[in-house]
Amino acid sequence: MPTFKKREYLKRVEKTKYKMEREGIEVLVVVDPANMNYLTGYDAWSFYTPQVVIVGIDLDEPIWIGRKMDVACANFTVWLSPNNIIGYPENLVNHQIKHPMSYITRTMIKRGLENKVIGVEKEAYYFDIRSYEELKRNLPDARFKDSRMLVNWIRSVKSSREIEIMKEAGKISEKAMQVAMDSTVVGARECDVAAAILNSQISGTEEFGGAYPSIFPLFGCGEKAAAPHLSWTDSLIKSDTAIWFELTGCRHRYHTPLSRTLYLGTKPSKKLADTAELVGEGLETVLDFIKPGITCEEMELAWRAVIKKAGLSKESRMAYTVGLNYPPVWAENTASGRPGDRTVLEKNMTFHVLLAMWMDGWGYELSETVRVTDRGCESFATFPRKLFIRE
Amino acid sequence: MPTFKKREYLKRVEKTKYKMEREGIEVLVVVDPANMNYLTGYDAWSFYTPQVVIVGIDLDEPIWIGRKMDVACANFTVWLSPNNIIGYPENLVNHQIKHPMSYITRTMIKRGLENKVIGVEKEAYYFDIRSYEELKRNLPDARFKDSRMLVNWIRSVKSSREIEIMKEAGKISEKAMQVAMDSTVVGARECDVAAAILNSQISGTEEFGGAYPSIFPLFGCGEKAAAPHLSWTDSLIKSDTAIWFELTGCRHRYHTPLSRTLYLGTKPSKKLADTAELVGEGLETVLDFIKPGITCEEMELAWRAVIKKAGLSKESRMAYTVGLNYPPVWAENTASGRPGDRTVLEKNMTFHVLLAMWMDGWGYELSETVRVTDRGCESFATFPRKLFIRE
Repeated sequence: MPTFKKREYLKRVEKTKYKMEREGIEVLVVVDPANMNYLTGYDAWSFYTPQVVIVGIDLDEPIWIGRKMDVACANFTVWLSPNNIIGYPENLVNHQIKHPMSYITRTMIKRGLENKVIGVEKEAYYFDIRSYEELKRNLPDARFKDSRMLVNWIRSVKSSREIEIMKEAGKISEKAMQVAMDSTVVGARECDVAAAILNSQISGTEEFGGAYPSIFPLFGCGEKAAAPHLSWTDSLIKSDTAIWFELTGCRHRYHTPLSRTLYLGTKPSKKLADTAELVGEGLETVLDFIKPGITCEEMELAWRAVIKKAGLSKESRMAYTVGLNYPPVWAENTASGRPGDRTVLEKNMTFHVLLAMWMDGWGYELSETVRVTDRGCESFATFPRKLFIRE
Repeated sequence: MPTFKKREYLKRVEKTKYKMEREGIEVLVVVDPANMNYLTGYDAWSFYTPQVVIVGIDLDEPIWIGRKMDVACANFTVWLSPNNIIGYPENLVNHQIKHPMSYITRTMIKRGLENKVIGVEKEAYYFDIRSYEELKRNLPDARFKDSRMLVNWIRSVKSSREIEIMKEAGKISEKAMQVAMDSTVVGARECDVAAAILNSQISGTEEFGGAYPSIFPLFGCGEKAAAPHLSWTDSLIKSDTAIWFELTGCRHRYHTPLSRTLYLGTKPSKKLADTAELVGEGLETVLDFIKPGITCEEMELAWRAVIKKAGLSKESRMAYTVGLNYPPVWAENTASGRPGDRTVLEKNMTFHVLLAMWMDGWGYELSETVRVTDRGCESFATFPRKLFIRE
């Protein structure tokens, strides 16, 4: 049941060990659910309790350790051999005194992993302070070191099979965006539009069903378009209103976010129309510019040059790597399109180029998820790149 | 735009300060998004970057500090005065060297909060190790202390307005479960059933629109019913199959999860039918037993006594507190129905009583979300408590 062939996972583990060696890390404790999935295939909504994948330079295979009831989930999704799938007792979950890390570290000691240089993910979402303190307390002879997103960085360059899956997700993004455009009508409740979008994201296409997206559809309606991360309400959608949608298809946990803006009415304001024009030009400029060898900050500069002409600026990053993930993000939290980021673009890196302008009282969003190709880039979705205007 | 009246938030802040004083905490750094929402109303999908609410014994009001672009989200959702809504620069987000905590701690120093006993949420999901280390490094004169879920525990007893909102969520749970039952037919793709459920969760009822649930619908179909946390696939649903659904309505971020099991066919196996009968008896026994004054472990014992008769046992907890939350959980991560938990039930505590039996190759789920009343308890949803059987 894992999504990929075993040899693809083995290659990922090899890359991880190679990087660990270079960083002087002997044992890596992986907690980020996307990294756990990337290395083992593990896929379940269980990241709210402590669970780890342990990669050891001297271990043949990673070890999955999670809650006892989730061993069944691991059995359905990982490629590991049964003796590397280990469950800790249920009474350790959300306990005020006992902690799963006591069990996890006992297992590490049994496997001879107690006095090593241990890499930990200091910026992973589901690695809490208590877990880290228990880990350190139970392994007093180990040295701990921030892995500095080691596996996240490996994830940033995709395999051909990963690209195929993202193309499937792209088809779902297209469909969901079309549903967003069609279901947004004057008088509809915002929640009903959101429901239609989610229905489409999960139902996917006839060929490819959708997985749950790492972020629920974001949309900014009317004056709320000024705020980037609000959710829908029960309010009715009014006429003469601009609404932006930021949504994604998700397939086997791979995301291809896509953003567009719709104006309900006949005549958008001049500033909205002008901004749409400018941002559209910015997007084409950036997509023409992207190719292997350029840096993230050069990509940002290409965009900035366009909006500067109109006296505009955008403080927030204009792109970030995207792909495999779990809530709360589809981003990989590695490279970003902004000044100072000198990450060099490589073939099969995948970026969400998000040219969102959140202004005072209004907003405009246009985005594409693209793959860096041999000589340029290509988008995962085909959807007109314009301000949509409709009554 | 906050969900509650200002005086309700003020009461929550008062309760928090009272508990802080008892615990010897002068300043509380709140990172858990549900706790942030509980104290200030803040509601946005922005918890993937560092953000905090700071409660100080000597502060008139809490302070919200988040990413600059999310100040707009705060302006739409919190009750705080403008000088207590502070944004940090965009270039600190996902930066390899700089960190938002440097900005957050500078603000704390400006407000005289640098040499205090500071409570931190060591088990919050979105408080990562790097943030904690930066916090400590920048405030060398402070003493740090685990807040031990201080705000979560306050959340466990609901106000009458919170109960009203949960009743609205309960109506959505009912509707979504009916959709689950109706859309699960032989030959349907699992993803299409999930899509229909989500559509219903978000669309809500005519009166009450739904918010995004903290957990996507869980369902165990066929042999996957043995695993508690898997997601749907593209597979077609077969006949002679049992499927359990665990789903929730969500209203203003309050959840009322509900679980039922459907058998597609004419004759479920004897073990499934017997288990359904037993678990049904267990649920009625527990619901009859719940009232203020009993402990969580006594509640579990009432359930265990029923299944013990049939030679069955359940290692995992059979209930937990539930309410306001964000992904990845609807649970409050405080009291649990299991041996050793001596939390005393109070009026208006709300529990998800989840009598799930994940067996070898199959599973059965039955659950209710209940409110402890003056003398007993009442469920938020009305839905027949039985194994559903349909061709």
